[in-house]
Amino acid sequence: MLPDLKRLIEESTVAFADIADQLAGQAIELPSWAFGNSGTRFRVFGTPGTPRTVQEKIADAAKVHELTGLAPTVALHIPWDQVDDYAALGRFAGDHGLRLGTVNSNTFQDDLYKFGSLTHTDEAVRRKAVEHHFECIEIMHQTGSQDLKIWLADGTNYPGQGDLRGRQDRLAESLQTIYDRLGDGQRLVLEYKFFEPAFYHTDVPDWGTSYAHVSALGERAMVCLDTGHHAPGTNIEFIVAQLLRLGKLGSFDFNSRFYADDDLIVGAADPFQLFRILHEVVRGGGFGPDSPVAFMLDQCHNVEDKIPGQIRSVLNVQEMTARALLVDRAALATAQEAGDVLGANGILMDAFYTDVRPDLAAWRESRGLPADPMRSYAESGHQQRLAAERVGGAQSGWGA
Amino acid sequence: MLPDLKRLIEESTVAFADIADQLAGQAIELPSWAFGNSGTRFRVFGTPGTPRTVQEKIADAAKVHELTGLAPTVALHIPWDQVDDYAALGRFAGDHGLRLGTVNSNTFQDDLYKFGSLTHTDEAVRRKAVEHHFECIEIMHQTGSQDLKIWLADGTNYPGQGDLRGRQDRLAESLQTIYDRLGDGQRLVLEYKFFEPAFYHTDVPDWGTSYAHVSALGERAMVCLDTGHHAPGTNIEFIVAQLLRLGKLGSFDFNSRFYADDDLIVGAADPFQLFRILHEVVRGGGFGPDSPVAFMLDQCHNVEDKIPGQIRSVLNVQEMTARALLVDRAALATAQEAGDVLGANGILMDAFYTDVRPDLAAWRESRGLPADPMRSYAESGHQQRLAAERVGGAQSGWGA
Amino acid sequence: MLPDLKRLIEESTVAFADIADQLAGQAIELPSWAFGNSGTRFRVFGTPGTPRTVQEKIADAAKVHELTGLAPTVALHIPWDQVDDYAALGRFAGDHGLRLGTVNSNTFQDDLYKFGSLTHTDEAVRRKAVEHHFECIEIMHQTGSQDLKIWLADGTNYPGQGDLRGRQDRLAESLQTIYDRLGDGQRLVLEYKFFEPAFYHTDVPDWGTSYAHVSALGERAMVCLDTGHHAPGTNIEFIVAQLLRLGKLGSFDFNSRFYADDDLIVGAADPFQLFRILHEVVRGGGFGPDSPVAFMLDQCHNVEDKIPGQIRSVLNVQEMTARALLVDRAALATAQEAGDVLGANGILMDAFYTDVRPDLAAWRESRGLPADPMRSYAESGHQQRLAAERVGGAQSGWGA
Amino acid sequence: MLPDLKRLIEESTVAFADIADQLAGQAIELPSWAFGNSGTRFRVFGTPGTPRTVQEKIADAAKVHELTGLAPTVALHIPWDQVDDYAALGRFAGDHGLRLGTVNSNTFQDDLYKFGSLTHTDEAVRRKAVEHHFECIEIMHQTGSQDLKIWLADGTNYPGQGDLRGRQDRLAESLQTIYDRLGDGQRLVLEYKFFEPAFYHTDVPDWGTSYAHVSALGERAMVCLDTGHHAPGTNIEFIVAQLLRLGKLGSFDFNSRFYADDDLIVGAADPFQLFRILHEVVRGGGFGPDSPVAFMLDQCHNVEDKIPGQIRSVLNVQEMTARALLVDRAALATAQEAGDVLGANGILMDAFYTDVRPDLAAWRESRGLPADPMRSYAESGHQQRLAAERVGGAQSGWGA
Repeated sequence: MLPDLKRLIEESTVAFADIADQLAGQAIELPSWAFGNSGTRFRVFGTPGTPRTVQEKIADAAKVHELTGLAPTVALHIPWDQVDDYAALGRFAGDHGLRLGTVNSNTFQDDLYKFGSLTHTDEAVRRKAVEHHFECIEIMHQTGSQDLKIWLADGTNYPGQGDLRGRQDRLAESLQTIYDRLGDGQRLVLEYKFFEPAFYHTDVPDWGTSYAHVSALGERAMVCLDTGHHAPGTNIEFIVAQLLRLGKLGSFDFNSRFYADDDLIVGAADPFQLFRILHEVVRGGGFGPDSPVAFMLDQCHNVEDKIPGQIRSVLNVQEMTARALLVDRAALATAQEAGDVLGANGILMDAFYTDVRPDLAAWRESRGLPADPMRSYAESGHQQRLAAERVGGAQSGWGA
Repeated sequence: MLPDLKRLIEESTVAFADIADQLAGQAIELPSWAFGNSGTRFRVFGTPGTPRTVQEKIADAAKVHELTGLAPTVALHIPWDQVDDYAALGRFAGDHGLRLGTVNSNTFQDDLYKFGSLTHTDEAVRRKAVEHHFECIEIMHQTGSQDLKIWLADGTNYPGQGDLRGRQDRLAESLQTIYDRLGDGQRLVLEYKFFEPAFYHTDVPDWGTSYAHVSALGERAMVCLDTGHHAPGTNIEFIVAQLLRLGKLGSFDFNSRFYADDDLIVGAADPFQLFRILHEVVRGGGFGPDSPVAFMLDQCHNVEDKIPGQIRSVLNVQEMTARALLVDRAALATAQEAGDVLGANGILMDAFYTDVRPDLAAWRESRGLPADPMRSYAESGHQQRLAAERVGGAQSGWGA
Repeated sequence: MLPDLKRLIEESTVAFADIADQLAGQAIELPSWAFGNSGTRFRVFGTPGTPRTVQEKIADAAKVHELTGLAPTVALHIPWDQVDDYAALGRFAGDHGLRLGTVNSNTFQDDLYKFGSLTHTDEAVRRKAVEHHFECIEIMHQTGSQDLKIWLADGTNYPGQGDLRGRQDRLAESLQTIYDRLGDGQRLVLEYKFFEPAFYHTDVPDWGTSYAHVSALGERAMVCLDTGHHAPGTNIEFIVAQLLRLGKLGSFDFNSRFYADDDLIVGAADPFQLFRILHEVVRGGGFGPDSPVAFMLDQCHNVEDKIPGQIRSVLNVQEMTARALLVDRAALATAQEAGDVLGANGILMDAFYTDVRPDLAAWRESRGLPADPMRSYAESGHQQRLAAERVGGAQSGWGA
Repeated sequence: MLPDLKRLIEESTVAFADIADQLAGQAIELPSWAFGNSGTRFRVFGTPGTPRTVQEKIADAAKVHELTGLAPTVALHIPWDQVDDYAALGRFAGDHGLRLGTVNSNTFQDDLYKFGSLTHTDEAVRRKAVEHHFECIEIMHQTGSQDLKIWLADGTNYPGQGDLRGRQDRLAESLQTIYDRLGDGQRLVLEYKFFEPAFYHTDVPDWGTSYAHVSALGERAMVCLDTGHHAPGTNIEFIVAQLLRLGKLGSFDFNSRFYADDDLIVGAADPFQLFRILHEVVRGGGFGPDSPVAFMLDQCHNVEDKIPGQIRSVLNVQEMTARALLVDRAALATAQEAGDVLGANGILMDAFYTDVRPDLAAWRESRGLPADPMRSYAESGHQQRLAAERVGGAQSGWGA
């Protein structure tokens, strides 16, 4: 390490007090479906206390926000969260201290879409899929949501089954029709995914494809990056940096994975990767009041309790954001320019290895929040009450 | 290429006539569940004509055998194929020209097994799982089945959730108890799988773990190799060669994959890999009347028709077996010893690129089978008849 | 399979005679470095007869073309192929029946570039790297080459070592400076690579990054797709289809791989993948006299003989192109639109499993070429002559 | 979280003071080759101050031990570290406060081994390779080394090039011959590697193969686990747990990777994985005075300085060992048995997120070591002195 660099680091180390204000504005959207049952193709295990209605899901999301102050909005999934009166649903959310957020479309559970939706060869099927998005846009007007998120399950299982090129052309046309329907201030965010449920090809498999489409659509079309939707070994923080540079990173779907799209708790599988991602977010202007980047969770709690699973998740994002903000970026830039590999790496690791939990606990208490939201929830008996109260009815779920 | 080698090749090339007899003995077991509906966690699409009962599944399997002569047995999955009278079921199969084969246990769909079955910390759960296997062994006595196949879904989703080591110890004990219950001539085959449905660790994730357990159990415990259950890039034919060398390759679950355990039609994703696998099978003594290796399919036909999907699958195995038998192994050995890389590779590729389909069509006709079983099935109107007849009742399926 | 579809297939099957003319125009560029020694970081094994000069490399390339008629051009790598007089080198090539093709730059073997070249933080280093490309453009003027190919080894080994975002900005600026220097009719093709020699991040790791850069540069900037430069499981034919759709597929670097960038003989690791790639090339207008797509090899013959390794490679591309051209695209489109999964897949596989080798052998003889170029080469004694003649001097190589 | 569990955790949390003594015994062997130049097939960059002799490498290793107290032994690689008098070399090491450790054989850099060494079809080649190992054993007698480590580069690049089965049989025979030559107290540790330098198949590709061989050899044959030698996604800590259970984990080669065998600084790519590995080491009895498991580094410092690269590495292992020792295993077991997924995971993560660095700094000072070895080294001017002194001669390196 260069002697000058050493001095620079000693003088400029970032302290928790320096970043406390920045943390205050953090908001992480919860997905309504995280509170319902989920599982694999082999089995969906039910859990006592699982919500039966969208209102109960919202109430569960509100509990997460109440204990953490981190989750002021909840995303809807249509038709899973379909109701007659979305304005009333918005008021219900408001009464629980929440707002309704992103509207997620679904074109993967109707028999009609077995061979595709926005990419289907049959114009009637495409039209039906487009109209479903029109319906979502209409809901957004009623809920005041900003983002229409499209994750497309379209793809094929066997070489030759579909015409890769023709599907792209039809996709572009369908997306344009949807985009043109957006109101002022509304955005279309297009998610990509490496594979599943299709096993040979996926119509939006990578960030390049999503980027090419949203670039063609216009300014209010953006890419959604789901942290679990990449090929093994992919450097996700590079994609974050690139999309921020290109002005096209619209939102995150946070979760974590060891193998495929495991949808585990964000930060659970590779906390250092989450740190690197958030470092690039901060570096690239993706964090803070002026950033267009929306933070969301997209997870499945197959074997763990769902409300504390969501609490753990937003805390993980918060803790790692704190570590990313603690990076001494001036010292880092100096080490990078000096070609000091170990010095630069050491500056980054220093922030990662800093235990921010005591400072965050104090910070929470100073804002009227419980110091340890996980423990507060466990001690509150809330889970046991839900299990006792929510008897009868059909538990919410997703998937087949 | 060495001049002597060239002569050798020219003189000794293997012809289809040389291998026709070997093909006659080939048998590929069909899984009863391939005829039911299947899908992903996102959606299971239904198909007209899907069986409602195990008898209808057996009838469908019989159709595959009728047209191909390749599939004389059908595997059962308990409890999916549970009946009151297995002897009667065996007679039903016999009336359709089939025998009942491998019995597959299932310890992944009862709420009890949410945190494990044969590996569970709770002795009562383990005992229940062991007793399920006793039931399977009892069924095997009634059906005359040779193999009890155990695919274990046990695993965990989060680091720390389970004690990796303790789970292995309990697994060993549970397996021993099951093994000790086997009758004469019965075998236990232990399947391994890289991941899914567990996403952090799987209790039998690789061939090494399966091998260590079956070696400890005894002579009648063998490894089952499912071609879709490996890490990306794994050289599967090496494992085939190794297990044959160690005398522990009990059976195959054939299917194919691009990404994870996609369960696509065998040979569909990487036909050359299937060829290499079968080349090692032949090389290592895993093919033929004296071999202990059982060939089975384990596939899901999520978007394609199921009966022709199975026909296509057994034909793929047959065609590729023919190519593997066509390898001029004497010439290959000479080229290998000479360090003639391109020559040796060329000998292998020559067999792979040989179009065996016309010879196989003639061979089939000479044995009273349709030359083109896929076409025969399509033209027979069988699928349409099933769709018309099988109305009402609950279609068979698997998974959640 | 639908009855109408069946009829369509029977009527319209494509025959070899229908595609013979299309094959006539095929040209695959050879890399000069394929004839030099190569290896891994562990060892570069030398081979008798390896060229000592660029002229000997060109002579070897000419031998490949003489026997196959497939390889009329040879790519240069600067500085490995540096000479005083490129016009003279071009005449030398012409005398051997070849033209000089793509010029490949090299910014990865000078100590200056240890921490980057076009992306380096130090302006002086960037300028040196840019000027190296100016030199390459100057050479292109002298050789009449069309393409300047940039494969960038830039990247970092440790998180924090470099500023991902700043490196992209500097890369964009450097590329623009190079692009502005291109003469009329010259193109810049930007290759991407997943990893190696950098192990944490690579500055152009995926097609999306390459596409974003070349789109910003202008019409004569294109993407180069090296078939070995992707994450495990990547659907490469999808990228081919997408880049053709976007008008940005400039060239291929063909090779094959089982694991990383193995640089094996094209088609050796996964012949079916090569077939699928070429099917999309044909489908998307990437093959034929009007296509802007250049076909090149980029391989290393670490353990096999180099000239026959290149012969095998161009034959593999030719054979697979023939199979791709044999796909009955009209029938395929009909099956795809009908949702006939097995039918559509079957049409594709039918072409793949067709043994085109006898037809190609006859086709070659009709054009004055040896029916079996591999055998012709082996029998010619050429390799032995080279080994005897090329004694003394330093064998060409690449890498460290 | 269960209330009783909460109490248990509060009562029993492990403190640094509880583990300090256990840390005292930790020893991590350094590889002599880490101090020489290394690189990729593209380029080996030289560094001022690189050792020219094995003595200079040992002096560099001694510096690492002087500053950390963690690295009392250094591994040799034959023939890279060949000397006339190993007893004298041992005394030289002793004078520098070190002992000579594992002897690593090398059968991948002689032209003879182009197509294999212990697996070669030619008995003369196999004999030469076996005799090289006899030489290594002889050296071990002179140096007092315990372990002969065999990493075998044997493998093939093309399907058909070699006979997978025959190679295994020859390997088994060669290993037996070597094993039989071992003296009392000497061990053979057999390393496995997924791929590289061979790109189609590797003769010892996975732990199962290594385990099968060492089990056949006898008690003093063990498996060496190199953390960079696995397929993408492999759960390495599971293998650790399994090998400890089977009594066959002989040693670790520590390093880290993002893609292939990147040989980066241990803990640099995925610190959480290193933590999980060390947790299983501790859990399974692999740490402490009675454990047969040897800890080694096997890394390449391609772009960073080598001595501080090794200091950083041993510190990373030490810090992560401390975190692993801090896991409250009693509480963890209780949470695991209760099926408390989030609770159990939380107990593990609590240890991982604990910042052990201040305690370790104090612990070092109490033992006469610098609190911050990285800073001490940087401030010492040692690197600059080496660069000034080590002028002339050929820098040590490895690879081609």
